[in-house]
Amino acid sequence: MSQSEDPRGERRPIRLGMVGGGQGAFIGAVHRIAARLDGQYALVAGALSSDPARCRASGAELGIETDRCYSDYREMARAEAARPDGIEAVAIVTPNHLHHPVACAFIEAGIHVICDKPLTTTLADALDLRQRAAARGVRFALTHNYSAYPLVRAARAMVAAGQLGTVRIVQVEYAQDWLASDLEASGQKQAAWRTDPALAGPAGCLGDIGTHAAQLAEFVIGLSPAEISADCTTFVAGRRVDDHVQVQLRYAQGARGLLWASQVACGEENHLRLRVYGTKAAIHWDQDRPNELTWHPAGEPARRLTRGMAGLPEVAAAATRTPPGHPEGYLEAFGNLYRDFAEDLRDARAGRATPARVPGLDDGVRSLAFVEAVLASSRANAAWTPLVLPA
Amino acid sequence: MSQSEDPRGERRPIRLGMVGGGQGAFIGAVHRIAARLDGQYALVAGALSSDPARCRASGAELGIETDRCYSDYREMARAEAARPDGIEAVAIVTPNHLHHPVACAFIEAGIHVICDKPLTTTLADALDLRQRAAARGVRFALTHNYSAYPLVRAARAMVAAGQLGTVRIVQVEYAQDWLASDLEASGQKQAAWRTDPALAGPAGCLGDIGTHAAQLAEFVIGLSPAEISADCTTFVAGRRVDDHVQVQLRYAQGARGLLWASQVACGEENHLRLRVYGTKAAIHWDQDRPNELTWHPAGEPARRLTRGMAGLPEVAAAATRTPPGHPEGYLEAFGNLYRDFAEDLRDARAGRATPARVPGLDDGVRSLAFVEAVLASSRANAAWTPLVLPA
Amino acid sequence: MSQSEDPRGERRPIRLGMVGGGQGAFIGAVHRIAARLDGQYALVAGALSSDPARCRASGAELGIETDRCYSDYREMARAEAARPDGIEAVAIVTPNHLHHPVACAFIEAGIHVICDKPLTTTLADALDLRQRAAARGVRFALTHNYSAYPLVRAARAMVAAGQLGTVRIVQVEYAQDWLASDLEASGQKQAAWRTDPALAGPAGCLGDIGTHAAQLAEFVIGLSPAEISADCTTFVAGRRVDDHVQVQLRYAQGARGLLWASQVACGEENHLRLRVYGTKAAIHWDQDRPNELTWHPAGEPARRLTRGMAGLPEVAAAATRTPPGHPEGYLEAFGNLYRDFAEDLRDARAGRATPARVPGLDDGVRSLAFVEAVLASSRANAAWTPLVLPA
Amino acid sequence: MSQSEDPRGERRPIRLGMVGGGQGAFIGAVHRIAARLDGQYALVAGALSSDPARCRASGAELGIETDRCYSDYREMARAEAARPDGIEAVAIVTPNHLHHPVACAFIEAGIHVICDKPLTTTLADALDLRQRAAARGVRFALTHNYSAYPLVRAARAMVAAGQLGTVRIVQVEYAQDWLASDLEASGQKQAAWRTDPALAGPAGCLGDIGTHAAQLAEFVIGLSPAEISADCTTFVAGRRVDDHVQVQLRYAQGARGLLWASQVACGEENHLRLRVYGTKAAIHWDQDRPNELTWHPAGEPARRLTRGMAGLPEVAAAATRTPPGHPEGYLEAFGNLYRDFAEDLRDARAGRATPARVPGLDDGVRSLAFVEAVLASSRANAAWTPLVLPA
Repeated sequence: MSQSEDPRGERRPIRLGMVGGGQGAFIGAVHRIAARLDGQYALVAGALSSDPARCRASGAELGIETDRCYSDYREMARAEAARPDGIEAVAIVTPNHLHHPVACAFIEAGIHVICDKPLTTTLADALDLRQRAAARGVRFALTHNYSAYPLVRAARAMVAAGQLGTVRIVQVEYAQDWLASDLEASGQKQAAWRTDPALAGPAGCLGDIGTHAAQLAEFVIGLSPAEISADCTTFVAGRRVDDHVQVQLRYAQGARGLLWASQVACGEENHLRLRVYGTKAAIHWDQDRPNELTWHPAGEPARRLTRGMAGLPEVAAAATRTPPGHPEGYLEAFGNLYRDFAEDLRDARAGRATPARVPGLDDGVRSLAFVEAVLASSRANAAWTPLVLPA
Repeated sequence: MSQSEDPRGERRPIRLGMVGGGQGAFIGAVHRIAARLDGQYALVAGALSSDPARCRASGAELGIETDRCYSDYREMARAEAARPDGIEAVAIVTPNHLHHPVACAFIEAGIHVICDKPLTTTLADALDLRQRAAARGVRFALTHNYSAYPLVRAARAMVAAGQLGTVRIVQVEYAQDWLASDLEASGQKQAAWRTDPALAGPAGCLGDIGTHAAQLAEFVIGLSPAEISADCTTFVAGRRVDDHVQVQLRYAQGARGLLWASQVACGEENHLRLRVYGTKAAIHWDQDRPNELTWHPAGEPARRLTRGMAGLPEVAAAATRTPPGHPEGYLEAFGNLYRDFAEDLRDARAGRATPARVPGLDDGVRSLAFVEAVLASSRANAAWTPLVLPA
Repeated sequence: MSQSEDPRGERRPIRLGMVGGGQGAFIGAVHRIAARLDGQYALVAGALSSDPARCRASGAELGIETDRCYSDYREMARAEAARPDGIEAVAIVTPNHLHHPVACAFIEAGIHVICDKPLTTTLADALDLRQRAAARGVRFALTHNYSAYPLVRAARAMVAAGQLGTVRIVQVEYAQDWLASDLEASGQKQAAWRTDPALAGPAGCLGDIGTHAAQLAEFVIGLSPAEISADCTTFVAGRRVDDHVQVQLRYAQGARGLLWASQVACGEENHLRLRVYGTKAAIHWDQDRPNELTWHPAGEPARRLTRGMAGLPEVAAAATRTPPGHPEGYLEAFGNLYRDFAEDLRDARAGRATPARVPGLDDGVRSLAFVEAVLASSRANAAWTPLVLPA
Repeated sequence: MSQSEDPRGERRPIRLGMVGGGQGAFIGAVHRIAARLDGQYALVAGALSSDPARCRASGAELGIETDRCYSDYREMARAEAARPDGIEAVAIVTPNHLHHPVACAFIEAGIHVICDKPLTTTLADALDLRQRAAARGVRFALTHNYSAYPLVRAARAMVAAGQLGTVRIVQVEYAQDWLASDLEASGQKQAAWRTDPALAGPAGCLGDIGTHAAQLAEFVIGLSPAEISADCTTFVAGRRVDDHVQVQLRYAQGARGLLWASQVACGEENHLRLRVYGTKAAIHWDQDRPNELTWHPAGEPARRLTRGMAGLPEVAAAATRTPPGHPEGYLEAFGNLYRDFAEDLRDARAGRATPARVPGLDDGVRSLAFVEAVLASSRANAAWTPLVLPA
């Protein structure tokens, strides 16, 4: 469990800035939680919105000092590069079309970059960024987050170790339903920019989640397809980008595959699944049960590998914060208690006598009354024993 | 998503201290992640170990200033209470037998308390704490974390709203296998203290996880049993506390139930399950799939409720940080990328030319090459199109 | 697959009679399908109802000759024993209170018995039957059918072979909801007799399904409990027998267990589950997925054993009629086609020009059109190929 | 439950013949069980093998009289058509290449046909059969058995009733692994003919299981694709037919789909799955859990429909023989008891004193001892009560 903390001593947090992610944004908040989780970053600057007032308000909420709330990302890049305590890295969480110019600005300033996917809206822009980053010597992280699940990393290690033999079949799919109707017409912000080619690029569902599916498959099997045959469809009338994608895949070594991504698959929330079949074994992973990996060796029973279990590849253990059987939401449930109790404490600070939001001493008292009654009953050969709760 | 951030402005983080949780401890790290998750606490003081050197080393790792690393929790309580910037709350994550004296010290100092469960090792101590906290006016949180899962809160709200009718049957179980053999004999630290009555109290499995099961059932149905019949067993020879507990439950309103907790159930990791059957419906929740709640109305098909879905009780939505279909580990996978990239950045700081630990520009380039090939193929009526990866 | 057929040649079917199971009965029809499944019985006589007209009508439906339709089971026993072609065995599918006198009559006549469970309504009657059958030398089968699932037999063999080590924990449950309300008041026949102590005996849910759960556990682990502590409840007002049973189990070798049977568990259909934990491994079986057995060896991943897979105990293979992956309902789906086509053929016999009830030549034509289009498309490098359906 | 029996009286069984299905065959045995299940057929003639000795031996096992065991199906068609008690229908269970000539022979003789799929090996032959059957007025059933599962029929009815709205997406797959290696080289009979184009036709995996997947999708949604793009692959070196098929589907009303069939998908047994997404709801069915159908209305929780539950379409209820919660293998488990007891009875016939193969009186005695101990314990407020088993 202690991997998340620094065994070496001197490791001060990385100074981080953020572009995008102001009030009402989705992925920016996710990036901030991720940055806080292990205490290795300090968010100290931001161009959270191009609207100055909103930028400051968003920054204030996050404890960013006013003079480091910028409404222009170019200014932020210049100003932060010039400060002795300037940011060391920037997280770019804007709509897709801004990834390229924002990344350029920070790369030019010599600041490392964490960028949400897809990298850019065109291949030419992606190549341009790659060349600039190399020239300037900055590090660049692209948040293909699904490949960071412990059991996805285990899967990759197993394929690399030859446990599947030669890969023959790849089945990958990412199904959602949130764009099954014309949500963008309602003005919903996420739907609006993700279906606007000017902001999202020419690929809709393809760019938004098809790229995740493709990266996941490639990450696990270590191969890109050599040849594809694709059928992109737009089911919702008037939509300007694809909302459903089917792709046949052929790999140079002979494997075959299917990739399916859809944003109109009724009832699917964020259902990402990967199945890989080799000559020696198959593996199945499903985001719906992210703590499990099914490993099916040829001619033997399927095995259920679980996060944290003995014998998994080391990369999986290194990506794990909770013990086996405790799903990863365990930490969030714990976080819920802390968050709720922070509210209790703020009420206490302000002298408000509010009822507790979390379990407390009464719960502890009841629990001990239960323990003592159970022990007494068991000592008396399971005699029925009243559970008396002290008033 | 934005509930995790402060919409009001001035809300500086709560100053937090910790007692216990030094190097090698388990639950202390969990508490720290929980405290960091929403950015609402700052860990500024600790009595992380009674060994002074270890205390300082643990504190340094966590960025606690040396003069606020205490080797005596009593001194910590006094000193922090005296500082103008002293801690506002303390998290107690020691073995069970210390919960009472440590909590007393901080309560006396007027410092709010977050305490791991079980509250104390005896009912008398629990009652004593309750009285002291009331007298001193401090807030007290007991981390019965399972009741903070969004769908557990939804379940409670559904029962409270009468959606189950009258509760008839409660089935709750918490099964583990980590003490199936004599692990304490190996010196494993967690096993050693949890099976030592002097440190853990007289209840073994009962106190460690039986209390969680009991609290979970009570939290959801809003009732404590009136009468119990219990059979506690010790399966592993030489063990000084119970490792297997079975309890029959009778409730005053007529319901019946079974509680099973075991630490010797071969193959079970941390398997906590609750099923409640009422006259109008049943609900099932299983920590193995924490993002789901099965709701089975009488005479109708079972429904799968998922975290984040429209129509869930508000308490569930308020405890949710990720969208439907993204399991809660989604945040941790994201956190893994941030953590790994922090390593990359520290290498960059130090001038080390290491290979990237996270997806980067090459991945972005491949992704865009894929996107453009898919769009080209689709425009050409799904013609086979080579996927050319720029060198 | 061919176990179901006779490899030896001369094996004519067993001549079978039935007592009970007339029109409107449930379990009698199940016994008849079971008897037909492998073609090893011929149903030639019956006392299907004590009402003579109903007895004859029920017999006619089943192709039993009129002179072998009896309205008195005693007469049937006498008459069949006297015929040279008399029945060799009788299936008793009456309400429980008749099991004893009916079985006595056929045992006295030297006729073998197949009896639905529970054997009798009192232990004294059970002992009496055992003594009579031994004295007369007849064979006696009690249809504890759940122990005849292939994977239940595999589980028993695995325990017997020591694959679980010493059994420590038994969890068995059988949950239904069909008696969650006062169904007997509606006159529903099954509910009426099963809740009437005069017909069902003093045990309600306990006798009806609790005995199945107890037998299943005993069958698999090969042990009966030495000592029990039981809490029987009647939830539905006015009901004269228990409808919910909880039992703590202690075994002589030290194992502990819980048995739960309920007929008021809202939403449960016929949910029978067994979990056994030993020192070396655990096994889980669930009637909801009868073709699977989870085997969890200590310290290793859980394995999913499936019916028909290589390496299962021989007893499981011997009880299997369909290949792996084909659930047992596969046969029934096939049977549905045969049944529906029998209707088509009867229409043809009678000269009725009805539309076909089953797939036929048009389906075959469409299927071949699909095959040829797929082959043509594949030969043309997956070119889009119209699927032309011949008129 | 009583649909399986004839409510009208006079309905004598259909006289049935069989071509193919001699010793060692697979699908013939399945057809015979299906024919026996409801007692509506009598198997009275057969050309079970073209080898006369094997034909007679196979017939003897099945109780077919010697003079109705034919080694030539043409002779069988002529002879049976000429008998006053000749067969009314024939089941054709030969390798694919014989379906056409055998069906021709019986159609010409005016005998109704039940034929295993695929209908023929070419579309031309299929059209020929259709024309002949129409001309001669015989009924023809093609055993697309998967469409006879109760919940598949429910799915079709739900789509037809508009519960899905307009179908947008079809995902169907049938995955096996039994041909993942060169099994035909071992001489295994099933593998040998199914991979021989002369016997199976030009389509391998496509004809064997791809046609099932296509028919299942079509059956449920009521539409054939208008246009397909297919990629057939042969993974196993030397194999003469495809063993892996991927097909993109386009429907005239705009829906898109993917069909995947494979016989080299490591770890898959007979895994047939269908998912259909419409504008109003989605449905998912999986042969691995055939008694369930997931129905996911847009914007609502997914519902688990189970076989036999109230409210399902009538066609599903009509195809059901067991109550809800009893999986269809329930009948087979029952059948296992009957089959095993038939062995006991044959031993009794022959005077062999063998141990019983099925539960019997000792089990009944133990069960009643358990019942009486439970009742006694419960009456004594759950006092521990020894379970004394009468010797």
